[in-house]
Amino acid sequence: MKLFSSNTYQERRQHLKKSLKGGILLFAGNEESSSNFKDNWYPFRQDSSFLYFFGLDLPGLVAVIDLDLDVEIIFGDELTTEELIWHGEKTKIADLATAVGVAQTRPLKDLQQYLDNGRKRKIHYLPPYRPENVQKIVHWLNIDVAQVPAQASDDFIRAVVALRSIKSNEEIAAIDEAVNTSVKMHRRVMQQAGAGMKEYELRAMLTGEAMAAGGNLSFLPIVTIDGQILHNHNYSNTLSEGKMVLGDFGAENELHYAGDITRTFPVGKKFTEQQKEIYQIIYTAQQAAVRALKPGIRFLDIHLLACKKLAEGLKEMGLMCGNVDDAVENGAHALFFQCGLGHMMGLDVHDMEDLGEEYVGYTPTLKKSTQFGLKSLRLGKELEAGNVVTVEPGLYFIPQLMDQWEAEKLHKDFINYGKLTKFRNFGGIRIEDGFHINPEGSSLLGDPLESTIEEIERLRSK
Amino acid sequence: MKLFSSNTYQERRQHLKKSLKGGILLFAGNEESSSNFKDNWYPFRQDSSFLYFFGLDLPGLVAVIDLDLDVEIIFGDELTTEELIWHGEKTKIADLATAVGVAQTRPLKDLQQYLDNGRKRKIHYLPPYRPENVQKIVHWLNIDVAQVPAQASDDFIRAVVALRSIKSNEEIAAIDEAVNTSVKMHRRVMQQAGAGMKEYELRAMLTGEAMAAGGNLSFLPIVTIDGQILHNHNYSNTLSEGKMVLGDFGAENELHYAGDITRTFPVGKKFTEQQKEIYQIIYTAQQAAVRALKPGIRFLDIHLLACKKLAEGLKEMGLMCGNVDDAVENGAHALFFQCGLGHMMGLDVHDMEDLGEEYVGYTPTLKKSTQFGLKSLRLGKELEAGNVVTVEPGLYFIPQLMDQWEAEKLHKDFINYGKLTKFRNFGGIRIEDGFHINPEGSSLLGDPLESTIEEIERLRSK
Repeated sequence: MKLFSSNTYQERRQHLKKSLKGGILLFAGNEESSSNFKDNWYPFRQDSSFLYFFGLDLPGLVAVIDLDLDVEIIFGDELTTEELIWHGEKTKIADLATAVGVAQTRPLKDLQQYLDNGRKRKIHYLPPYRPENVQKIVHWLNIDVAQVPAQASDDFIRAVVALRSIKSNEEIAAIDEAVNTSVKMHRRVMQQAGAGMKEYELRAMLTGEAMAAGGNLSFLPIVTIDGQILHNHNYSNTLSEGKMVLGDFGAENELHYAGDITRTFPVGKKFTEQQKEIYQIIYTAQQAAVRALKPGIRFLDIHLLACKKLAEGLKEMGLMCGNVDDAVENGAHALFFQCGLGHMMGLDVHDMEDLGEEYVGYTPTLKKSTQFGLKSLRLGKELEAGNVVTVEPGLYFIPQLMDQWEAEKLHKDFINYGKLTKFRNFGGIRIEDGFHINPEGSSLLGDPLESTIEEIERLRSK
Repeated sequence: MKLFSSNTYQERRQHLKKSLKGGILLFAGNEESSSNFKDNWYPFRQDSSFLYFFGLDLPGLVAVIDLDLDVEIIFGDELTTEELIWHGEKTKIADLATAVGVAQTRPLKDLQQYLDNGRKRKIHYLPPYRPENVQKIVHWLNIDVAQVPAQASDDFIRAVVALRSIKSNEEIAAIDEAVNTSVKMHRRVMQQAGAGMKEYELRAMLTGEAMAAGGNLSFLPIVTIDGQILHNHNYSNTLSEGKMVLGDFGAENELHYAGDITRTFPVGKKFTEQQKEIYQIIYTAQQAAVRALKPGIRFLDIHLLACKKLAEGLKEMGLMCGNVDDAVENGAHALFFQCGLGHMMGLDVHDMEDLGEEYVGYTPTLKKSTQFGLKSLRLGKELEAGNVVTVEPGLYFIPQLMDQWEAEKLHKDFINYGKLTKFRNFGGIRIEDGFHINPEGSSLLGDPLESTIEEIERLRSK
């Protein structure tokens, strides 16, 4: 198990304690997760907030910070002699706790009593996203299952989001490492993909590359010739000349920090002229958005800037028309760009998505829009130095959506429906990289990966 | 999604219906499973009994067979237009149902009413192993969560076990395919492993090989220089000369049938003399066990036969002493072979483990032993033609266990504790293959994989 120094975890907890008034902070670690029978497990993934404050990458742990008594405790059980036969000798809980700067440990059976004693005080918990942890909260705190999301602690969530949103130098180094592995994964796929191969063969390559670096994938990969399907987890198509492959995937390193990159490349050696035209629009939009990244600017405005660049390009091609600003304000561009420009990245690929977008991406005064397109933007609020974000514009030609809008005559002043026919089977293109916001602007995370049309064609022809 | 013909599923359900008297059979399909936030999913894995009877490899489905009305219904919801943007156009539920020979479909919201209407009759369900499916049962049937395991239907479980235990020819072909991929995975690891590599690099190779065949792993792989740890899911050690690698892993094919093979090979080109001695004992025990496989013999007796062969070999080496039959009867050999000889294999690598070992591996008259070693034998009952089983003897030198037994003077008439010192850091060896029980005896599943000392050394020196 790889850890930062014990100081790192102690400092994180000190900051957390300072930002909360009182009560008990309850951190439910994750359990093993069953696939097709109880003991056939998916690879273990610890909860990210547990990792951030307590580091220990093992199932069956619960941690408590008692703000009133200024006590930190890790609850967990030692292996029995018989479990040791199956799972090997494990480090003692007390030694694990010491490694992350926690002085007290207790067996799990003591947790209920501890919480019962604290019942008159506020017990803060984060919103659970796994059903077994929902059940634990129900059981520990004796509340109704339907009440579990609503009773999660607002103050606790805000304090965790404030800390985890600003990445330290050692976190940036960890993210760089994950991104560098992600770069290798993409390069291998771009170099080895070819007509006649199955998408699952590309999945095999990129997964192997992530694991060979000692980590795992940071999310279920998208690697598909149907790039217009935004979250495509099907890998059964055959690559054919004329199509493009959209690959959206990344690694997480041993510390579980994520990388997340997207590239779209032609199955043949060269992009077609039509593909080049669309690709260049997206590339230009990404460059403009990246140049605008800096502390103090709302990511919502970066998103809208990218949307305008996309709409300008589409207008030049004749697919859109009218005033570009009006088109974007009305959401007409969302026929082609249905999602958001990016998201925070850290211990989760969509960092802290479990804690709620209203905390992570928005503020009490900046609420998420309900407009189609904008409502899928995970991050709207002002950027701060230390944030890590992705920038991932794209254009997606979804036949069913184009038919539906045309039938409804939606935004007909901004869209030349007659010219869309040639793009029905085009697919989709996305370009995505990760950036670290610094006082001067931003810097690319990890090593640069081939991204222009020329760079990709050069890589493909090697 | 790959399927057998609709006839296959119809016939399976016909057989099931004939073996049950009345009531409603409820099949809860699996959902997506979250790792570090709700929408960051592990690869989807459908429930195996759902796959067996209804084939559909998609989340969010429930199936019902109403025995009294002779009606089969698949409950599931169509994608909304908006979901389609994210997940692509999916086949309509009615067409999916037709593909597996089911005439009726209904939206999920109708399920509760259907079950409420049937409440006066028996509603049979299988024991759920995922927490979200436990919750569904609680909700649908309005029973207490603590009652869910106990109220699972005995008759339903027995009927499913009886059917799934006997594999059809098309199932054997599917298992052969999964085993053949597993053979390729092992061969690649045995050919490419070398001193200085990390275990996780081997994990990367074998995972890539499984995915390149269009499937997945059938279970969390074991690939370790600490072979004495029976279920080792740590991959951080470095391979070094003098050590052996124990690899226990396999693929599942697109239909989700499993392969499961173990090989143990030297990190160097050659086994040491000590390694050869131990390896040969295990190989001999496996051969003897395989020769004894046939319908009508209890797998318990095959297990005991293998134990005696192991004990004989250890006695020849001077590690055990006394009468071999007595030693095995008393469980003295379990110091070195702490687990069972094998298990059923099919849609699950430990086939039907979710349904309960008392049904799958034992009978009302043959109960599982409580003796250390024997109590870990998953399969004891008489074999039948059509069964698929693994045969996987091994010898494991666990320092903590040897110390504990020696301190307790356990089985001191059968074990030469003084001679064990040389084996403290030996590790462990296992050899495992899968077999199809036929009327004449058994046949190896899939292509033969290098297994003798000579074959493995030849493969390693290529």
